[in-house]
Formats: sequence, structure tokens, C-alpha cells
Amino acid sequence: MKALEWLGNSLRILDQTKLPVATIYRDVSTYEELAQAIEKMEVRGAPAIGAAAAYGYALGALKYTGDRAGFQDYMNTVKERLANTRPTAVNLFWALCRMEDCLRNLYEEEDLDAIRKTLVAEAESIAEDDRRVNHLIGEQGNPIVPEEANILTHCNAGELATVEFGTALGVVRAAHQVGKKIHVYADETRPYLQGARLTTLELMNDNIPVTLIADNMAGYLMQQGKIDLVIVGADRIAANGDTANKIGTYSVAVLAHAHGIPFYIAAPTSTVDLKMPSGQEIPIEERNPNELRELFGVQTAPAEVPVYNPAFDVTPAKYITGIITEKGIVSPPFSVNLLKMLVRS
Amino acid sequence: MKALEWLGNSLRILDQTKLPVATIYRDVSTYEELAQAIEKMEVRGAPAIGAAAAYGYALGALKYTGDRAGFQDYMNTVKERLANTRPTAVNLFWALCRMEDCLRNLYEEEDLDAIRKTLVAEAESIAEDDRRVNHLIGEQGNPIVPEEANILTHCNAGELATVEFGTALGVVRAAHQVGKKIHVYADETRPYLQGARLTTLELMNDNIPVTLIADNMAGYLMQQGKIDLVIVGADRIAANGDTANKIGTYSVAVLAHAHGIPFYIAAPTSTVDLKMPSGQEIPIEERNPNELRELFGVQTAPAEVPVYNPAFDVTPAKYITGIITEKGIVSPPFSVNLLKMLVRS
Repeated sequence: MKALEWLGNSLRILDQTKLPVATIYRDVSTYEELAQAIEKMEVRGAPAIGAAAAYGYALGALKYTGDRAGFQDYMNTVKERLANTRPTAVNLFWALCRMEDCLRNLYEEEDLDAIRKTLVAEAESIAEDDRRVNHLIGEQGNPIVPEEANILTHCNAGELATVEFGTALGVVRAAHQVGKKIHVYADETRPYLQGARLTTLELMNDNIPVTLIADNMAGYLMQQGKIDLVIVGADRIAANGDTANKIGTYSVAVLAHAHGIPFYIAAPTSTVDLKMPSGQEIPIEERNPNELRELFGVQTAPAEVPVYNPAFDVTPAKYITGIITEKGIVSPPFSVNLLKMLVRS
Repeated sequence: MKALEWLGNSLRILDQTKLPVATIYRDVSTYEELAQAIEKMEVRGAPAIGAAAAYGYALGALKYTGDRAGFQDYMNTVKERLANTRPTAVNLFWALCRMEDCLRNLYEEEDLDAIRKTLVAEAESIAEDDRRVNHLIGEQGNPIVPEEANILTHCNAGELATVEFGTALGVVRAAHQVGKKIHVYADETRPYLQGARLTTLELMNDNIPVTLIADNMAGYLMQQGKIDLVIVGADRIAANGDTANKIGTYSVAVLAHAHGIPFYIAAPTSTVDLKMPSGQEIPIEERNPNELRELFGVQTAPAEVPVYNPAFDVTPAKYITGIITEKGIVSPPFSVNLLKMLVRS
């Protein structure tokens, strides 16, 4: 399954809100449509959001009908719109900045079509980088996976969260491909059920054994010795290693720590945000309370019940065994070693 | 809202699987119907299951059409059927044993109608005891609740889980009634959503402030200092204090411990099972995998995905600050103090 695919003049996205019941692809041809698709989580997962936003920026340029003089202001509007879709995953801003840098380097170019072509190429390069990086994350992470392992994961950090292969599930795939006996427990991941709907589907498609559990069962599994290893993705990693990821990740990390189970983050280095000294500064998105009052149109709680619905939480570095990146595995102390890794060519 | 009400010849139950969307009462007039209602969780919550089973036993006697000679064998069948509905909550077995003891004391009685009358009276006495005991649990627990408190609870240990008033929510109600500023965070409690559907409803009806969260958000709330106290119910308490309760309770307890937050169990002494030396011996029910594949008929995961669906877990005594019973609050060491409490008249 491909979360997104560039068709030359539009971006084909797989509407992940409909999975696993329906597999619906939709061709998005304006940056506004794409912004809404990100807001509605039709495209989701930090690396996929980054690549999608890059394509959205390119779509903005492709659809522009004005002259060269007004182009820069218009593209600022495009960037703003795309940047305001979701606040937590840093890959969104990283990809948009890369696109903006690309445009800045074209300041002497007068031909709008040449600019458009270069921006599309840059978006494709961002997507291609993500493909390559995820396979490298799989390779780099493979050594930490035992020959036989029950791996717990939370949310979906798979091919559906990226352009290809996945980050946390990239490590799972790589270990499976070299013949290790892997079994995955997938937290269903309320309220959006990315684990139940997406992670299970991906792994079943790849014939990797998977068992679905409710989020509140992870502790009990650990207590019974049924989890050897936890691997999750990341939406933003602060300079000290504190990691924002899907809500519930923090609870899993505390539980893993209490049971002496290794807890790994798998993410591209583009997820590291050195401007954030610690996780406390990372903005946490709060989503619509209705996500906890109804599910696919079915009422699951009193219609007027007050709801708290943070979409992410921050796991302090002290609970993280290692951060698996395309450049290698970063070990504590992260404030030193993340920086070292990032400057490595 | 009343979970159950005796009508003389039948038991009126509130079908809790339909709440909060519909409030449907159903009059159950045979023990088989009642057994099925317990299995389907139309009646649920350890104390409510106990009282319902007692009424079910009485219904069995009321509907018996044979002679005195065959009565005892028949009632053994009734007891077996009711006892085989759900394995974890001990109140079920406790109530059935109390009914059986009552019948045993009637061995010289030849008049079946007199026996029926006595059995009905015993069931009513079990229900009445539960009412009284829950109000006492509220009184006993009130001192541990600060003047202002954000209380986290898991599942539903309220009036809907008992004959009246509730256990964990009994303590909440008692604190609210004496004017304390209480706010409750209710874990939605997957897969059955007893927190989202029942706890919120009860508290909103009583004008006690409540906020709904997904189970995986509890740790994040604790990290932010938003939880002062955890109070949950119990399905079975072993002699050493280990406590079986709704799946996810263990995770909440570990998280509370990691954040230095008091974690209390509220339960009648009938939930204590001295025959179980520790929690390891408590049987844990596993329920239908479809509970994690669909919700109210809506598919939420791949249809064929393997599922692990334990309905309960066991919280080791070391994570429990105290056990609030109708006779007082039991503190560690529980293996000594539970016994002391139980023999107290």
C-alpha cells in the first residue's frame, strides 16, 4: 500500500480514515485540498505528512496563475496554509522549509515553469529520500532485534506513515526479511485506531504475525513476560532526546521501564528538532472532542460529555533505550550523541 | 439509574450494552435469561453481578415445576449455569454460595412455596446489603479524598456496577455530597467503553464534573500533574491484597506508582477471596476477539486479525495504597490487615 504517489500534476493519496474497510485512493490537485487531507488525517504519520506537504507546496506552484512578481507572496500563503494543518510533527515544517529554501535559490529565475519544474523535483527528492532513509532505518535497527522477538508497537509507524517501508515497522520488516521470528503486538491506539486499522493491515499484508490488543492491555502483557522489545515512531525529537509521539507512547515507555523492557524510537534524522532544547517546548495538538464521543458515526459516549483529547505526548529521554535513525542508533546521553549523529556526513 | 430491580416475579435489568444511546429496561423471568444477560454484559460490575445471580437463583426456584424430591438437583443445575457465566468476579460465587447455604438450611422444609419465599427474601437481603455496604464504602473512603481533587477512575464502579451508589464512584459521590470540589477523569475503558458510556453518564446525571479520556492518555495526565488520586473497583481481591479488576487497571497502577499518586481500591469485603493466596491464582476471563474487531457493528480492524482480549488483569498489592471497604480502609501489609478487617464484626 502506498500512502501517497505523485502523478505529475496531482498527488494520489490513500484515504487512511477509511481503512481497513475500504481502500479509497483520491487524487488531490490543489494545496488547499491537500491541507484538508492532512487535517482530516487522510494522510498521517510524520514522514508521510512531510512528503505530502512538499508535494502540496509544488501543487501550489503548479496551479498558480499570476505573474512572477506576485509568486513569492502567493507561495508564502501556500506555505502558511500547509504549515497550519498540524502542529506537532516537525517533518511538516522541515519539508516546507526545504521547499522554501529551494524556491529561495531560484530568486534569479524568471521563468515560472522552470521554477515549477524545480519545485516538483525537490518534492520528489524529499519523497525519494524518505524511501531510502526508511530502508536504512530498517538495516540500522535490525541488530537490536533478537532472533525471536515479541515486539510491541503503538500507533502506526509503517509504510502508511511514510512514503515507503516505515520507520518502527521498517525495523520490524527488516528483521522479518532476514528470517528472524518476529511477532508484533499492535496497540489499537485510541481514538483513531491507527494500530487496529493500519498496523495490523500492513503486517498481515506482509505475512508478519501480528496480534491486536487494546491500549490498556500492554501493561498486562509486559507483566506476563510477553513483550521483549518496544519500537515506536516519532513526531518530533528534542535536542535532549525527549520524544513526542502519538498519545499513549509515554504510558508504554513508563510501563516498559517498570518491566525492564528495551524501548526504542525509530525515526529519520529529519524528525530531530535541535531548536527544541527539551520535550517541554514541543507543541501538542489537541483534536476535536468528538473523536472520543463517536466512532465512524456511532455514538460511544454521552453527546455532551467534556473530553480531553491530546493527540500526542512526550516521552522523556530517560525512558528511551535508543533512537534508531538512518545514520545509526543513537544511545544516551542523547544531548551529546544526537548532535554527533546529525553532523556525521 | 438502577442496574437491577426486583419486581416480585422477575428482575428488571437495565441493558447496559445500549447506554448511553438508549435506556432500555428488560424484565428477566428465568435463570437462563439472566445467565445470558450476565454473559452479554447487559448486567455487569462485580457487586451487581452478585446480586443479579442471587435473583437468578431465586428465579430458578420460582419457575421450578417439579416436586420436592427433584428440587435440590435442579437447583444445583441452576447454580452451575449461573456460576459459569463469568469466571473472574468473585461476588458471583459468593452470592451463589450464600443462596445455596440458605437453601441448605431449608433441608427440613417440605413446602416448595415456603422455600421459594425464603430464597427470594435471601436474594433481596443480598441486594439490600449491597446498598448499605456501598454507602458505607463512601463514608469510609471520604477521608482519603482531598478538599479539591482530580480523581482518575477506570471502568465503571458506580451505581450501574452495583445495586446502588457504587464503590469507587460511591467514594466520589460521598466526597461530592459533603461539598468537596471533585473532578473525575474517566478512562474510556476499551473494549467495552464502560468508562465512556457508563461512568460519564452516572456522574453527569449527578452533576459531578467529569472529563472523558482515552485509556492511553492517563499517563500523560499524571505527567502533567493533573491527577491527585486514583480510585477503582475490584472483581476479586486475593488474601495478599493482589487485586483483579478490569483490564487496564494494572497499567494505571504502575503509572500512578511511577508518579507518586495514591492508588486506591474500593470494594465490599465480599470481593475478598481468602482462598486465593495471591493474584496469580485468580482466573482471568478472555472474551470474544470480535470485541476488538468491531464496535456496535462497525468494523474497526481487519476482520480476520488475531486478537488477544483479556477482560481483567491483576494489580500486585505493592502498587495499592489502600483498600476501601465498608468496614474501613485496609492498609498494607494486606496479608495481615485484610484478615484482621474480615474478622472484625
